[in-house]
Amino acid sequence: MFDLKLYLDDRRRLVNRSLEEMLQRAAPAGRLHDAMHYSLMAGGKRLRPVLCLAAAETVGGCAADAIGAACALEMIHTYSLIHDDLPAMDDDALRRGKPTCHVAFDEATAILAGDALLTLAFDTLLSAGVRQPRRARQWLSAGMDIARASGCRGMVEGQMQDMAAEETPLALDQLRRMHALKTGALIEAAATSGAVLGGADERQVEHLHAYARNIGLAFQVTDDILNVEGDPQLMGKAVGTDAARCKSTYPGLMGLAASKTFAGQLVDEARRALAPFGERAAPLAAIAEYILKRKH
Amino acid sequence: MFDLKLYLDDRRRLVNRSLEEMLQRAAPAGRLHDAMHYSLMAGGKRLRPVLCLAAAETVGGCAADAIGAACALEMIHTYSLIHDDLPAMDDDALRRGKPTCHVAFDEATAILAGDALLTLAFDTLLSAGVRQPRRARQWLSAGMDIARASGCRGMVEGQMQDMAAEETPLALDQLRRMHALKTGALIEAAATSGAVLGGADERQVEHLHAYARNIGLAFQVTDDILNVEGDPQLMGKAVGTDAARCKSTYPGLMGLAASKTFAGQLVDEARRALAPFGERAAPLAAIAEYILKRKH
Repeated sequence: MFDLKLYLDDRRRLVNRSLEEMLQRAAPAGRLHDAMHYSLMAGGKRLRPVLCLAAAETVGGCAADAIGAACALEMIHTYSLIHDDLPAMDDDALRRGKPTCHVAFDEATAILAGDALLTLAFDTLLSAGVRQPRRARQWLSAGMDIARASGCRGMVEGQMQDMAAEETPLALDQLRRMHALKTGALIEAAATSGAVLGGADERQVEHLHAYARNIGLAFQVTDDILNVEGDPQLMGKAVGTDAARCKSTYPGLMGLAASKTFAGQLVDEARRALAPFGERAAPLAAIAEYILKRKH
Repeated sequence: MFDLKLYLDDRRRLVNRSLEEMLQRAAPAGRLHDAMHYSLMAGGKRLRPVLCLAAAETVGGCAADAIGAACALEMIHTYSLIHDDLPAMDDDALRRGKPTCHVAFDEATAILAGDALLTLAFDTLLSAGVRQPRRARQWLSAGMDIARASGCRGMVEGQMQDMAAEETPLALDQLRRMHALKTGALIEAAATSGAVLGGADERQVEHLHAYARNIGLAFQVTDDILNVEGDPQLMGKAVGTDAARCKSTYPGLMGLAASKTFAGQLVDEARRALAPFGERAAPLAAIAEYILKRKH
């Protein structure tokens, strides 16, 4: 029986230790370093880096093969949270129960800490390729996947569409497209970059891409469901906020029951994409299951 | 006799055309694309990309070898200007005679346009490496130089120090260090990345690095001198603003005459670093001369 908790604890520890080391090496002591550290080590779930490591392991590689990409993904995710929280964007004062970066430091420092984390992500990917010239092509390919998912044909464009949606509610296909860009693309890049660095062939990359596309969407659908009927105590945040703000959501657009069915179908689809990998895909299968059943 | 104007016109045209094509390919039509285009094509001097191309040519390569890096450098330079102009940073409403990005669009769009340009720079570098697998190591090395110069051990840290200096005036060595990070590092990376992509060996890279270190500093010293005694008509902006704001400058810290001598020495030093390249270094030699004698 595969123990997901043990697996997540171990891989998160590896990611956290590596992030600490990379930041220590790259950023000289000072206020910029402190702000980067504050947000990067604020206790995230590390979903993207764990997916990246698990994808590498699923195709027969080991976690060490992909740790540079895993950490780059978390730096990019963290930078996007820092910038999304800014007064000119979502204007959030709290994140994971702690003051957001621009509140704990100041707005200029938060903008620059985000910029520096985004840059450090690519520094990390490129430096790994320089250090391992025999895997140069793998690092270039993994880095390209991650860059493409993060910018104007991925996450940044998704954030633009999400902000525009505050004025004009989205139809179901628009909602799906927005999420595919804002959160889906980077989750997919986590899987494909990990697969490439683990030594996958093209077909294997395709299978893991399909897996990630489905769990990325399932994650968003369950997020919306929890906002309707989750337990505020378990979640550590208020529920019902989407409906109060008239936000476009899956339960709002397709109903609660249909949303649950849809999430279940997506996770089934994700698990089917893992079939060719047999037992090695146990961590990814357990993560898909966890996304469906989570209470927070 | 080498004709610098002809050279600059030609290389700038190549850079501008390539930037247009890259943006067209990468960013889907919409407000984000428009904001990126607005700032990227606002008529900059293209100093960094031209240096990058000229470095490639100086070591026997051609401009086409380095055009991906040249464009990435300009995207990074442009993103840094967009973010520096934000209300939380320098709060500038005009740049090159046009409204800054957050004035022409809005603050959130300007933050995201900067983020997207920074990301597209690395997308461009990594994609070039994927497309040219036989030059994979060159693209990784050039990309690493550029990433390192742009982030928390380069430009972003320099901007942090520059903002802190508004409260505490800098001594001469602190001023020099701040400029080396804020503007020097990316100018150096322009030269070294161009050299690597042009096929330079390690000693050639070292020579061009020394050249760039000296002209980067000379550029800053002459900037400060022009702010004291430049012709506002030729410069298209006011002079005397540094002194009025009690900003730490070279003329302020070492006197006007000594600053001119210093700038001349730096350019001499830069030209000496070009000696091994003979006639091929004519463009770089002319650029050094131009930096010293410019009136705007």
